[in-house]
Amino acid sequence: MALVVHKYGGTSVADAGRIKNVARRIIKARERGDQVVVVVSAMGDATDDLIALAYQVSEKPSSRELDVLLSTGEIVSSTLLTMALQNMGHPAISLNGAQAGIVTDSSYSRARILKVESQRVVKELDKGNIVIVAGFQGITDGMDVTTLGRGGSDTTAVALAAALGARACERYTDVEGIFTADPRLVPEAQRLDEISYEEMLEMATYGSKVIHPRAVELGELYNIPILVASSFTDNPGTLIHGEVKVEARNKARGVAHDFDVAKITVVGVPDRPGIASAIFVPLAEAGISVDTIVQNASIENITDLTFTVAKSQLARAMEVVQPIARSIGARECVSDSRLGKVSVIGSGMQNAPGYAARMFRTLSEEKINIQLITTSEIRITCIIAEDRVKDAVQALHRAFELDVEES
Amino acid sequence: MALVVHKYGGTSVADAGRIKNVARRIIKARERGDQVVVVVSAMGDATDDLIALAYQVSEKPSSRELDVLLSTGEIVSSTLLTMALQNMGHPAISLNGAQAGIVTDSSYSRARILKVESQRVVKELDKGNIVIVAGFQGITDGMDVTTLGRGGSDTTAVALAAALGARACERYTDVEGIFTADPRLVPEAQRLDEISYEEMLEMATYGSKVIHPRAVELGELYNIPILVASSFTDNPGTLIHGEVKVEARNKARGVAHDFDVAKITVVGVPDRPGIASAIFVPLAEAGISVDTIVQNASIENITDLTFTVAKSQLARAMEVVQPIARSIGARECVSDSRLGKVSVIGSGMQNAPGYAARMFRTLSEEKINIQLITTSEIRITCIIAEDRVKDAVQALHRAFELDVEES
Repeated sequence: MALVVHKYGGTSVADAGRIKNVARRIIKARERGDQVVVVVSAMGDATDDLIALAYQVSEKPSSRELDVLLSTGEIVSSTLLTMALQNMGHPAISLNGAQAGIVTDSSYSRARILKVESQRVVKELDKGNIVIVAGFQGITDGMDVTTLGRGGSDTTAVALAAALGARACERYTDVEGIFTADPRLVPEAQRLDEISYEEMLEMATYGSKVIHPRAVELGELYNIPILVASSFTDNPGTLIHGEVKVEARNKARGVAHDFDVAKITVVGVPDRPGIASAIFVPLAEAGISVDTIVQNASIENITDLTFTVAKSQLARAMEVVQPIARSIGARECVSDSRLGKVSVIGSGMQNAPGYAARMFRTLSEEKINIQLITTSEIRITCIIAEDRVKDAVQALHRAFELDVEES
Repeated sequence: MALVVHKYGGTSVADAGRIKNVARRIIKARERGDQVVVVVSAMGDATDDLIALAYQVSEKPSSRELDVLLSTGEIVSSTLLTMALQNMGHPAISLNGAQAGIVTDSSYSRARILKVESQRVVKELDKGNIVIVAGFQGITDGMDVTTLGRGGSDTTAVALAAALGARACERYTDVEGIFTADPRLVPEAQRLDEISYEEMLEMATYGSKVIHPRAVELGELYNIPILVASSFTDNPGTLIHGEVKVEARNKARGVAHDFDVAKITVVGVPDRPGIASAIFVPLAEAGISVDTIVQNASIENITDLTFTVAKSQLARAMEVVQPIARSIGARECVSDSRLGKVSVIGSGMQNAPGYAARMFRTLSEEKINIQLITTSEIRITCIIAEDRVKDAVQALHRAFELDVEES
């Protein structure tokens, strides 16, 4: 008997009716003969409601307590889904993160999974139970509750799939799969039947909100195929895996974008060893995630260093960087918070020249100014003005012929 | 340094403002030099809301899942109270039932505490933390979450006080203490400064909703003084303990009542051994709590057997009893669901004749018909019509001079 791990997002379990709908989907999978482990997120806005409560009693809730508080959201949805399954006549049991053996480090609010002690899950499966696991949470060796941070429930699902040797991890939300671009920006965007881990990683890292890169990385590491599909329809979704057809590899796969980009440039930095670490170590210690980093060529031992952060972290980042800039003798710090980014992604790009040229020409024809450029083997990213992101995505989607249905 | 256990009920932590108010009370106790462990109930209607959710997905939620679901209510309030304390500059930590070492049997929804493994609590106290424990919940040896049923959080608090050798357990709710009668029925009711465990047990068992008898029993067993007081005022409350002044012992202490009484009479039961167990064992197995049991004297080896249950359990109890009544050759089963009970309680009664006579005379003068009578050494209880309970309580309160302030 094969094992499959399902994961349902918050909108899929937002109320009693949807929970029953999810239960029916799980029963269908069970009746196809698979053992089923299900990971659930908290219902709808439950997590946001709990966070709001926390800020009503404290200006700065401690991350340990916040983790315990937030973990209740997934416990609630896991028990309700279990009750719904039982009520439909199917043996089921809910397990919280601790019971499911999700052992993490003690970095509250963004814990990393150290290991999965899956004995309890296996025992319950052997008894014939459908096992419903509260996502997003784990436990330290010291029995303290942690949460996994962004993408947490996806990560729980893929980690469990790996630990249990599942044939696949099926991730259901309110979206139909991975598209060549965000359908809200590009109505002609096409759903991809499949995508490679690498391509998905680049898509996720560079703006696609559909699945968090952590889960994709974990899937690649343990070679767990991840199906991304809707819990509201029976459409086939997109399979993220390692064996994408050769033909499909030979072209651009999608256009990703992100409206949430702010830029800081440290101008006139003396070009000597240790400068980058002098700036980026304190930023990391302040918990600020730096995204793109670009250092221009040095002229007369003076260079400019530019990096991007999320807009919400710009003020804090400036507070950290300005005194450092002064102490290292830089001329000034300037920032711009009205930026976005657009990326073209596809493993076909790594052996085929001309993709970058086509991207730059397209943006130029649209009179979109490129502020920064970064590339990987399978991705080209341009930082542009926020109010031109939509135009850029649409133009690039056309230019790379992503609106043509796959044959 | 002495240790005190506080317990706060659901209304005391019903919203952010009240949680902060509770935090300030705890800080005052801490600043008087005590170590403080706090047990909290779920916020306001949180438990009812969770139960309603469960019944939206299942007609008959399993008790294991319901326990996990309900346990989240107390986890939420414990983390919020901890955050509020931390925000006021006081080190604090929340612990769930498992972390606090509340080990129970696996009778879901009404688990019994087997032992308290208090190492973690002690460790956190030694670090200088105020320890906030989620009440009402425990964990089995198999790591499954249980809830303790009615009076659960009170029981958690007294059990922790016993395990930690606390000097007292202070239980704060929205009531000012134990009164000679329910002040909603008897405006002249007096708050008692103190009451013995036994008297309190009788009061609680016979209708006073202020504290659950389980917690009182546990307090008596481990000799933990329990203070019952309001979290909204600084009034002194009522101390439940073992050393009540001799003078105070020598009179009636209070009138308890209960509107929730239904009666079943099995009429014409052959009076032979085994009849009682034939009826009451199946009732217990069906989870029905039987309260008062009265068997009238046998006439020609035929007797009537009467017992009372909560009104909500009457229909189910009749379903269980009717076939048994037929099989043992009883004539019929009759029920009445419009009853209540009234009790006069006081350890002074055990050595002083005349209390029962005074009670019956008082009810007679009010033209209140007595349906059943039961007594203990320190209590006399009459089952009467529900719509006469209020009159009875008021008349008895006067007749036993409970409206006279203690000097």
